Amino acid sequence: MPELRKDPISDRWVVVSTERGRRPSDFGSSPTVEGAGESKFCPFDEGNEGKTPKEIIAWRKPNTAPDTPGWDVRVTPNKFPALVIEGEVNRTGMGIFDMMSGIGAHEVIIETPNHNLNIADMEESHIDKILWAYKQRIVDLEKDKRFRYILVFKNYGTAAGASLAHPHSQLIATPITPRYVKLELASARSYFLEKERCIFCDMIRQELGTGERMVYENEYFVAFTPFASRFPFELWLLPRRHEAGFQELPDEERMQLARCLKDIMMRLKKTLNDPPYNYVIHTAPNSVPRPGKPDYWGTINYDFHWHIEIIPRLTKQAGFEWGSGLYINPTAPEEAAKYLREVKI
Amino acid sequence: MPELRKDPISDRWVVVSTERGRRPSDFGSSPTVEGAGESKFCPFDEGNEGKTPKEIIAWRKPNTAPDTPGWDVRVTPNKFPALVIEGEVNRTGMGIFDMMSGIGAHEVIIETPNHNLNIADMEESHIDKILWAYKQRIVDLEKDKRFRYILVFKNYGTAAGASLAHPHSQLIATPITPRYVKLELASARSYFLEKERCIFCDMIRQELGTGERMVYENEYFVAFTPFASRFPFELWLLPRRHEAGFQELPDEERMQLARCLKDIMMRLKKTLNDPPYNYVIHTAPNSVPRPGKPDYWGTINYDFHWHIEIIPRLTKQAGFEWGSGLYINPTAPEEAAKYLREVKI
Repeated sequence: MPELRKDPISDRWVVVSTERGRRPSDFGSSPTVEGAGESKFCPFDEGNEGKTPKEIIAWRKPNTAPDTPGWDVRVTPNKFPALVIEGEVNRTGMGIFDMMSGIGAHEVIIETPNHNLNIADMEESHIDKILWAYKQRIVDLEKDKRFRYILVFKNYGTAAGASLAHPHSQLIATPITPRYVKLELASARSYFLEKERCIFCDMIRQELGTGERMVYENEYFVAFTPFASRFPFELWLLPRRHEAGFQELPDEERMQLARCLKDIMMRLKKTLNDPPYNYVIHTAPNSVPRPGKPDYWGTINYDFHWHIEIIPRLTKQAGFEWGSGLYINPTAPEEAAKYLREVKI
Repeated sequence: MPELRKDPISDRWVVVSTERGRRPSDFGSSPTVEGAGESKFCPFDEGNEGKTPKEIIAWRKPNTAPDTPGWDVRVTPNKFPALVIEGEVNRTGMGIFDMMSGIGAHEVIIETPNHNLNIADMEESHIDKILWAYKQRIVDLEKDKRFRYILVFKNYGTAAGASLAHPHSQLIATPITPRYVKLELASARSYFLEKERCIFCDMIRQELGTGERMVYENEYFVAFTPFASRFPFELWLLPRRHEAGFQELPDEERMQLARCLKDIMMRLKKTLNDPPYNYVIHTAPNSVPRPGKPDYWGTINYDFHWHIEIIPRLTKQAGFEWGSGLYINPTAPEEAAKYLREVKI
């Protein structure tokens, strides 16, 4: 079973997946990519439903059975999960070290039966179905009291870590709240306690005011290059209205999110020649009920604000970034926003 | 001038180097590598001293002049610095955003005149001279009251971010303490306040006790794969004796460090077929004098412990890691240590 281990010095949890057990000879010159879309057989193509673990949910045409053709979006467990779904979260210590059994969910959201159709080129109504699948899975998994957090993410292109070319996203549910989310939560909390305002709402207001980093806005959503972008052409996408969790998004607003996502993905594709990218959804953590406190997070509904962080993978991270956590970004976000606004789509 | 910008939500500083100003067309399929050792001309080769900025220090043969041949190790400013050395650190705010002028030092330590000789294959006495250069530069730069921190790091191989093949390390002095170092400092501080012991010393004791993650030890130094390794074959190298700053290392112990470094670099090279890697030295931050307090860091000499983190670059970081700060390591550190211990060098 995989283990969650905590480094006592940096307070960082790591998943050590002993099952995968990669030995020195497993790390070739192109070590992390299995097939990478070159192989002719794709387990995510329509008709190959038997080659994936059994589907959990799918957006299906009427009268089609699970694990058969006829789906638009399909969610299955990851065949090579980083964390395992069966078991209890046992917590143990060993001297100064802490560990936990590697319990969690690891799922794949197959975004379309079409092997070559990516978000930038999909119909908005199809992107809406992908977002529907994200929401359904979060709503379902957050009922599992073993899990503290559900992270939805997408790797596009081998340079961004995608091991299969067929369009897909992933989801990992973990028994801990991941470090970056924790830092955001703590900082948003302390801002709220001081000012009685959401820091994300303040940021949206300031960005809409100056406009120099804005890339897209519609009635419900905005997208801009953040002031302290770590990476060239980094983008954040947020709901204009204050909302702590992605899963709270009303169905009637989801189409607007699909429109926003498609728009900025097309802009990235045109501006940067179809770059590899990652995106992650940062939503509020699962609430942890405590005796006499129905919601451990208390003011969470006021102080956190879900958002999507989109990172084109254009630069390599070197020793300085790894060692310091201080990023060097060679493209000012104001410049990046200007290119993205002005590109013809 | 480059800018240091702070993201108010994650409390993360970023260097936005507007001068380099990379536009969309600058990001090709292999964007970050200039030449990467394929070009015939190398500015770091002996005889080409005129092609680098003027040397700051060098370990030289007697009666040789600066910026001429006759050196063993040579330090110069980086020709394309991420931060600039001239100017004051002006701090400004803009709504919820904070920024600082991008003042700092960015230097290159050319490790040898030999274009193809890397640490694994150098004489120990030569590695000693490289370590001497690191120390000299830290001791000199920490006198500059504008700087809070000096980070020495090395990128080996293009996959690790090296832009020139000639063996070299780098150093960046910054007006802020980088985020990861800050987290380590805070955690070591709170451990010391609770237990009156250094957390690193405790970790060394525990690792020597179990032995399962040990790779190398001599009279003064140890190297092991950390319990919560983020990456396959990650290694930490620490002085056995408690010591806060790398620059405090007595000259007579430096040769033992050279021996330790050479040993583990040879083991990495043999075990993993000469992998790309990064290393960084985490030392105590420059002390910041305050009125009535000669050393702002107070107990720093007791609670921090310098070390070198070595990261072979064998796996790609994907969306999950970027989005969460939670790493998935497919090789247990106990396994990695076993391979490294048993390889013939």
